[in-house]
Amino acid sequence: MELMRSPLAPASQPDLPPITGVKLAAMAAGLKYRGRDDLLLLTFAPGTRVAGVLTKSACASAPVDWCRDHLGRGTARAVVVNAGNANAFTGQKGARAAQMTAQAAALAVGCEAHEVFLASTGVIGEPLDATAFGDHLSTLATLVSDDGWARAAGAIMTTDTFSKVATAAARIGDQTVTINGIAKGSGMIAPDMATMLGFVATDAPVSSAALQTLLSRETDRTFNAVTVDSDTSTSDTVLAFATGSAGEHGELIENADDSALDEFRQAFAHVMRNLAMQIVRDGEGATKLVSVDIRGAVSDASARAIAMSVANSPLVKTAIAGEDANWGRIVMAVGKAGQPADRDKLSIWFGDVKVAHEGERAPDYSEEAASLHMQGQEVKITVELGMGDGSYTAYTCDLTKRYIEINGDYRS
Amino acid sequence: MELMRSPLAPASQPDLPPITGVKLAAMAAGLKYRGRDDLLLLTFAPGTRVAGVLTKSACASAPVDWCRDHLGRGTARAVVVNAGNANAFTGQKGARAAQMTAQAAALAVGCEAHEVFLASTGVIGEPLDATAFGDHLSTLATLVSDDGWARAAGAIMTTDTFSKVATAAARIGDQTVTINGIAKGSGMIAPDMATMLGFVATDAPVSSAALQTLLSRETDRTFNAVTVDSDTSTSDTVLAFATGSAGEHGELIENADDSALDEFRQAFAHVMRNLAMQIVRDGEGATKLVSVDIRGAVSDASARAIAMSVANSPLVKTAIAGEDANWGRIVMAVGKAGQPADRDKLSIWFGDVKVAHEGERAPDYSEEAASLHMQGQEVKITVELGMGDGSYTAYTCDLTKRYIEINGDYRS
Repeated sequence: MELMRSPLAPASQPDLPPITGVKLAAMAAGLKYRGRDDLLLLTFAPGTRVAGVLTKSACASAPVDWCRDHLGRGTARAVVVNAGNANAFTGQKGARAAQMTAQAAALAVGCEAHEVFLASTGVIGEPLDATAFGDHLSTLATLVSDDGWARAAGAIMTTDTFSKVATAAARIGDQTVTINGIAKGSGMIAPDMATMLGFVATDAPVSSAALQTLLSRETDRTFNAVTVDSDTSTSDTVLAFATGSAGEHGELIENADDSALDEFRQAFAHVMRNLAMQIVRDGEGATKLVSVDIRGAVSDASARAIAMSVANSPLVKTAIAGEDANWGRIVMAVGKAGQPADRDKLSIWFGDVKVAHEGERAPDYSEEAASLHMQGQEVKITVELGMGDGSYTAYTCDLTKRYIEINGDYRS
Repeated sequence: MELMRSPLAPASQPDLPPITGVKLAAMAAGLKYRGRDDLLLLTFAPGTRVAGVLTKSACASAPVDWCRDHLGRGTARAVVVNAGNANAFTGQKGARAAQMTAQAAALAVGCEAHEVFLASTGVIGEPLDATAFGDHLSTLATLVSDDGWARAAGAIMTTDTFSKVATAAARIGDQTVTINGIAKGSGMIAPDMATMLGFVATDAPVSSAALQTLLSRETDRTFNAVTVDSDTSTSDTVLAFATGSAGEHGELIENADDSALDEFRQAFAHVMRNLAMQIVRDGEGATKLVSVDIRGAVSDASARAIAMSVANSPLVKTAIAGEDANWGRIVMAVGKAGQPADRDKLSIWFGDVKVAHEGERAPDYSEEAASLHMQGQEVKITVELGMGDGSYTAYTCDLTKRYIEINGDYRS
């Protein structure tokens, strides 16, 4: 099946600058796809710090298990990513394939296996034959360079219709540091985490603890705020790497909230948000980008549950696909969330058009104005609950026939 | 939009026999639909007991509020149902419309307003103009008869493609009692409750407490076990009525577990299950009826959460629509349920074909045999968790392009 580029894809993508200490190379290993890259190697200079956020699935993939086992050490020298086979639900064979891959990469790069991180994406339940990875990774280790970011982003795609990259720069003291990120994902996307892989690298001199704090915090607002279809993958993985090469005298900033990182935190958040929004923009079959902004909930957690109830509702998402300002379905989705809400305090907007006010249709409701907003490519839903100060914004896309087409015949 | 009859609709429907003390009539009130019945009146003999299960939505409709306020009294003389307007999210106007309707019915039938129960189904957020109901209900009160069941089932439909009726008989002591039921629902269907209306009536001599126990218990296994799209309505209502006219000397059976009710309980469960399964069979766009049988969970509640995670997964449901034996998506849906599960103890069947065994593809897995099962009209998914004795079966349908069509252009 040919995948047409999402109509929500960015018009252009930035060139990602080199980051000292990070090199990449990709190649076609021919595991599942023909005529395209599907194997990626990233290498890092000695001393690079790592942080990660992994799927909460009870049926996590073998590479996720591997990462979970080794993240605690805090250092990384390489990442291997393959597309086409998730190495998930593959039993002991899967664990052995993961170990074999890490050992092959360690040999090729010249490091310990526990310094190699792994991610696999693709079909679940097919045994991954990693026997050829040894030769492939040796080759890739000779090919790595610091300008391979665009090709790397292409190599990790599955049903993605465009490759996803983001970059930002920030000042830390007298130094300018760079943050580059790549990601993939377009289906099986739901929070905890969006079904996706994301890799962010920087030359900023931060400790692994500080990096983990920043990564976890921003993941909550970005990758975990997006949902395409409420389905959470067995393979979700976001890893962040800091080479520290922009630092002076090898000193690391240990505290994520250090004022020296003020600008860096913003740049890091920008890269994370940018990548997460690209995943929604590539939502399978998506024609509209939807934000769901919940305010006035009893807590942020409650606001998040309500936002996800709205963002995951098939009836809300099909109405948006049909450009129907059907706010009754928003009421339904708020009502079913199982969170404190008072029907008679509820107000709803589509864009700037107030459609419902304190439990009934807004007195000056204009169907025409609301419909006009629905016809745009970006739809903004705002709900004010009038219960407290909790707020959260979730991001999703519409649900179209194309989603059914893509997913009714993905595997075969 | 024309709604074609679901391919899963029953080939034929039974004629519902009269129940002493229950009379019905329907008419076209012209509220939203043209050329079809959309207003239903059921009347009950004095002394009829009532029980009910109502939506848990925090944004419940005005008729749901009305029923909740009056169910505690335990007696009923009439039910008014209208289709086309849900009288939900209509503020104080909605509450007044509900009260006005109940008062009009009370006047027409000759009872108290609190003995009248209400249900509305249709669009949310449109004020319901009940001013004409007074005349209509007076007319209906003169038309009610004991053979109006089939027409009644037709009058409460919205996007339903067939009307839903069920009947059963049982012996209680020397008497034969009858149980008739009608229901509607095909979208906005999810547990707690399936978005639906259901009305069950019997001449059995049971108390309102016993009736409530039976209704709550069976709802959990039937209406609350079905899901079409995970969306829970503001209007879900199941009401049961017992005229007691088959009883001797006016005595009521007070205990739902009384051995005199053994056969009745089975017949009651049969009617409830039959109606609930008809709702799944009329799932919007459905082409396949799917059962999800979870076994070996740590508890029944945990099994239910996992069953619903599978039954509500868009990726599982689109795979079924595509007749793809994609058991990796079952693994995904089990994994994301947030319930205790051990990947390496998990086994999965499609029909009788074991596709996964203890955490990996079953050794003698036959794609051909699994695909053959997927091509049938009824798909059975079984998951054995190997964790404990908890079990639950959920029922759903596949997710097709037709669902998107129906819901992308329902309101306009």
